[in-house]
Amino acid sequence: MTAEESTPSDDPPHLDTSHDAARSIPAVAVVDAETPGNVGTIARAMKNFGFRDLLLVDPPELDPDGEAYGYAGQARADVLANARELPFDQLVAEYHTIGCTAIPNEDDRRHVRFPFSTPRELGERLPMVEAETALVFGRERIGLTNEELARIDEVCSIPASAEYPVLNLGQAATITLYELRTLTLGPDGTQLPDVERVRADQVTLERLYGQWAALLAELNHPEEKRPKTMRMLRRVFGRADLTDREANTLLGLLRRATERPDREDN
Amino acid sequence: MTAEESTPSDDPPHLDTSHDAARSIPAVAVVDAETPGNVGTIARAMKNFGFRDLLLVDPPELDPDGEAYGYAGQARADVLANARELPFDQLVAEYHTIGCTAIPNEDDRRHVRFPFSTPRELGERLPMVEAETALVFGRERIGLTNEELARIDEVCSIPASAEYPVLNLGQAATITLYELRTLTLGPDGTQLPDVERVRADQVTLERLYGQWAALLAELNHPEEKRPKTMRMLRRVFGRADLTDREANTLLGLLRRATERPDREDN
Repeated sequence: MTAEESTPSDDPPHLDTSHDAARSIPAVAVVDAETPGNVGTIARAMKNFGFRDLLLVDPPELDPDGEAYGYAGQARADVLANARELPFDQLVAEYHTIGCTAIPNEDDRRHVRFPFSTPRELGERLPMVEAETALVFGRERIGLTNEELARIDEVCSIPASAEYPVLNLGQAATITLYELRTLTLGPDGTQLPDVERVRADQVTLERLYGQWAALLAELNHPEEKRPKTMRMLRRVFGRADLTDREANTLLGLLRRATERPDREDN
Repeated sequence: MTAEESTPSDDPPHLDTSHDAARSIPAVAVVDAETPGNVGTIARAMKNFGFRDLLLVDPPELDPDGEAYGYAGQARADVLANARELPFDQLVAEYHTIGCTAIPNEDDRRHVRFPFSTPRELGERLPMVEAETALVFGRERIGLTNEELARIDEVCSIPASAEYPVLNLGQAATITLYELRTLTLGPDGTQLPDVERVRADQVTLERLYGQWAALLAELNHPEEKRPKTMRMLRRVFGRADLTDREANTLLGLLRRATERPDREDN
């Protein structure tokens, strides 16, 4: 890999379509972190989003009774315990490296921080890439240096407030790994149930609207207003995506309201 | 707001189309946090993603020289300094509340944690809503209790690894606020330049391919292989979205390679 500005580094992803081995899960590299707590936070986010290989360049001392292990949660037993220390030279030699920085360059007059991708764009592109990749995060105060970024294959930036775009190291890594969970967690890999909500079937919903219509009649709601009111009700329940159980509970309540023996008016 | 399981809480968003006031930016509420550092982390993420109003229910003591202010970065001077303490009863009375939890229910037999939305879905839906909204995060070890969630209007869950879906409080809030930056940062509100990469114009790119063709000829690349090689080159540079400057630098290099007086073969 060349680092000179006059020789743009165009290291396109290796699309090896002849080879259908399982996709590699990117490693996560932390360069020169000062705070053990941040290393622990990153290890935890890695386990939360299905990443395994933590690479440490010039790490702080990680005391098994200290903050790194405290912040790692359940990742203390695997991700953090199995972290591998290596020099920066080896990192860039062995991996396709993606460096994360809060401040990209504005245009292509300088290549150190431009072009860049957002984590979401990487999450869309990288699943097609079969290669050893490492996401690289820099030290707390200044992130990755220009010298480091020049040796890294591509640049990634998290969109944030122009007023204060610099995220804490652990938080930046957490967001990046969250966006890249598409590389690690299959369609059934998250804790969320497959179907987030199951909309009630249309027959049930039509019975619900029928019951609303009956209630409007029972309430002597002005006849000329009923179509408009019914449309409003359809909009309200339409966008709420009622589940079957919700629709049936509502239907029961409305039926009882319609049939109230003591009802006079609303 | 009703909390009984038998009366589903359908509190649809108030779509007030007659009213074109500026959209409200959701407040962020933290319930019963134990660690001042997490409060600081959340304040920082709020400022990173354009949120302002921090609400604290039963907060730990926030020492101006302690971890909360240390972790808040530049948010120590506004978001954290202006945080407002209030009781949980007031929170649910004054705001449309969205409670974040790692573990939703599986289906609609229980309403406490079902249905739920992901932060990304909220980021798509909430921009249309004009109402006082608060995102509610719970204490470190157990999150929001079922009693608290029952009084909250809707539920949000971050997709994470089924093996270890429980995020640290500060990290969960960071991801949620990152996804909801659509509510706070306008199209020009982030630090990223408008155009992340500007693809070179097609005339320049065709000159680049022409120069490659000249180089292949100069190298006596077998004539029958040239169309296939040219297609490969188009694919490589096509997906790299070369900028103008990159394309021109490459063009210059290739021209010099083609014209090398001492060239014999490759």
